[in-house]
Amino acid sequence: MLQELGIRAKAVELQVALLNCEEKNRGLCSAAAALLEQAEEILKANQIDLEKAKENGMRPALLDRLTLSKERIKGMAEGLRQVADLEDPIGEVTGMKLRPNGLRIGQRRVPLGVIGIIYEARPNVTADAFALCFKSGNVCILKGGSDAIYSNQKIVAIIREALKKEQLPEDALLFIDDTNRKTTQEFMKMNSYVDVLIPRGSAGLIQTVVEQSTIPVIETGTGNCHIFVEDSADFEMALEIIDNAKTQRIGVCNTCESLVVSAKIADEFLPLLKERLDQKQVEIRGDERARKILPSITAATQEDWGMEYLDYILSLKIVDSFEEAVLHINRYHTKHSDAIITQDYRCAERFLNEIDAAAVYVNASTRFTDGVEFGFGAEIGISTQKLHARGPMGLRELTTLKYVIYGNGQIRK
Amino acid sequence: MLQELGIRAKAVELQVALLNCEEKNRGLCSAAAALLEQAEEILKANQIDLEKAKENGMRPALLDRLTLSKERIKGMAEGLRQVADLEDPIGEVTGMKLRPNGLRIGQRRVPLGVIGIIYEARPNVTADAFALCFKSGNVCILKGGSDAIYSNQKIVAIIREALKKEQLPEDALLFIDDTNRKTTQEFMKMNSYVDVLIPRGSAGLIQTVVEQSTIPVIETGTGNCHIFVEDSADFEMALEIIDNAKTQRIGVCNTCESLVVSAKIADEFLPLLKERLDQKQVEIRGDERARKILPSITAATQEDWGMEYLDYILSLKIVDSFEEAVLHINRYHTKHSDAIITQDYRCAERFLNEIDAAAVYVNASTRFTDGVEFGFGAEIGISTQKLHARGPMGLRELTTLKYVIYGNGQIRK
Repeated sequence: MLQELGIRAKAVELQVALLNCEEKNRGLCSAAAALLEQAEEILKANQIDLEKAKENGMRPALLDRLTLSKERIKGMAEGLRQVADLEDPIGEVTGMKLRPNGLRIGQRRVPLGVIGIIYEARPNVTADAFALCFKSGNVCILKGGSDAIYSNQKIVAIIREALKKEQLPEDALLFIDDTNRKTTQEFMKMNSYVDVLIPRGSAGLIQTVVEQSTIPVIETGTGNCHIFVEDSADFEMALEIIDNAKTQRIGVCNTCESLVVSAKIADEFLPLLKERLDQKQVEIRGDERARKILPSITAATQEDWGMEYLDYILSLKIVDSFEEAVLHINRYHTKHSDAIITQDYRCAERFLNEIDAAAVYVNASTRFTDGVEFGFGAEIGISTQKLHARGPMGLRELTTLKYVIYGNGQIRK
Repeated sequence: MLQELGIRAKAVELQVALLNCEEKNRGLCSAAAALLEQAEEILKANQIDLEKAKENGMRPALLDRLTLSKERIKGMAEGLRQVADLEDPIGEVTGMKLRPNGLRIGQRRVPLGVIGIIYEARPNVTADAFALCFKSGNVCILKGGSDAIYSNQKIVAIIREALKKEQLPEDALLFIDDTNRKTTQEFMKMNSYVDVLIPRGSAGLIQTVVEQSTIPVIETGTGNCHIFVEDSADFEMALEIIDNAKTQRIGVCNTCESLVVSAKIADEFLPLLKERLDQKQVEIRGDERARKILPSITAATQEDWGMEYLDYILSLKIVDSFEEAVLHINRYHTKHSDAIITQDYRCAERFLNEIDAAAVYVNASTRFTDGVEFGFGAEIGISTQKLHARGPMGLRELTTLKYVIYGNGQIRK
């Protein structure tokens, strides 16, 4: 079954790669319209998933992610249209050079080929992942969470039908509807058919894929983002940024989870910080020195430094030097996003140089690490690994470069 | 032991990343001089490896690769100096943009961090791999073949000593001198310490690393390169290029292994081809239609289409159409390098569009797929996968991009 999907993917790979931008946009808009037209059917399928999930005692937060509504389907359709509006990354040639022997060598941006995506019970990811893969000229094979199987099957059927109606290859979107865990394991070893695997979801899911896949994986990861308040920081700016980075949206990976404050300013800054965070009921977990200044806060344990709370909790560490701050952050962060608040030119430069993260900020909220905020229009995830793509991954990150070489009879001497 | 190496690598990672170009070049040149000065000691160590290898009945081709000489050590030193001469890729910022909210967002080229390299009994790779990793600001942990252990230990000791003498971090070059196979397996799972793993060597070694590593791998691969002689090809050019691509150097991955010829020109072209290749004693293995024109050639089996011969052998397939040629090549090639010989504009464009390989050529020899020929100065290997790097990998491909963001108090609304 799985191999058959792989063969079908390979059979349309070249056709999908060669679609022009107009054709791809037509497919996306037609799929968007079809999702709206058949919203009732999607809701019915979703209802079956929801009932089963409730029977199985699914937690409310997960139930919420699984639940579709007319509004959410409208959001899905809107998402497809937005991707249609984005610039097509395919075909651009960079760095074309004329070599001394007359060869012209350039790098042309082309689709990756077949992208596998493994995700959990969030049916909106189905339309979203398809849109980004399709616009970048890739075939996608989706493996969604078993709890969303009916919703996903319906969404996939509607999109495929829309593609067919437009005389576009419907196999550009393939779906594994076998929910057996063994199938997922086999999927992760289909190197002959799948060029890259992107897991989207919990840390546990991502860890499993990284460990078991023999296909190259792009790791989209958890965020333990830090903000360092340096000696020369503008306190008002620091408070604004910390408040925003911690509380503007609590459950996402670019939220600030840990604060590092210079000992020189701690006496003055910490009371202001507490006052500000108290207004949002943020629990501060501090080290011993922080607790000397703020006796009422919780004591941080060793474990706290590595935590991605995704909650109204913030860890707080006092440091004696810039070096200590960098060491602490590079040790405990997840290489996602970190910020310094400073008015000192040299500290700003050093922080940008020395912090090893996908996004390093001076005087701004970590919440900006996001495809839309970075100007990509949409994103498939935020990569915390270093190969291929780092940070928010838009359409461009779903492509690769191949060398094209124009000769007129050159041979190697 | 292995974990200790990982900890040492991490301890100097930032220091190595922040070395400026001058410091790195000083280290490389000093290491080059030290290798020359202590050539006798390297040769002595190599002698021990060679004697053991002969006792173990190593094949002559492998023995040759293991053997060092004064000349080869000179070559190693020269290689280090050449890398010193290359432009430093670190620090370049691309695409700095001013966002509507005033944030300046750019991508800065930075080292990958810690690079693991697993290779076979070729001691020259030791110096070579170190040079490329060091110049690109990376720490490397090398795991060489056990047959070259004494040679490698000596080379590593000399380079480390040279770094130390220059007051540069000697742990920029780390070496696993435990030749136990289990150690290699553990090494491939050291995700907390190693950012990327590059296997260099036989198809078997690469396959093992791809299957077992949980660290991201860059696959440097085998080459089953094709040349397609299209209807409008200039025969003289085709013969020159085929001769060059097949015979200029026989044992390398960018050598042509398979020929695809349009049926329309086969009657006329094949006798010329045979005459030319006979001069170099190249055995042609043809399909049935080729054998009707050239009755004396060997019959190709199904297996031949997928073969990387690395020998004076060439498979030959006759096709009825452009489409058939593309299908055949995309099915059997290793996505390394393929060429078309044509005078037809449309065929040239279609070939560049439709062949899915790291390097696609019009009217030139596949032998050009090489870091030096592409103008990179040196290469660590040729990637046949699509993530991160495709084709020859130079210094640039040993780096990643991190987002640097300059703000003045921006928060997300």
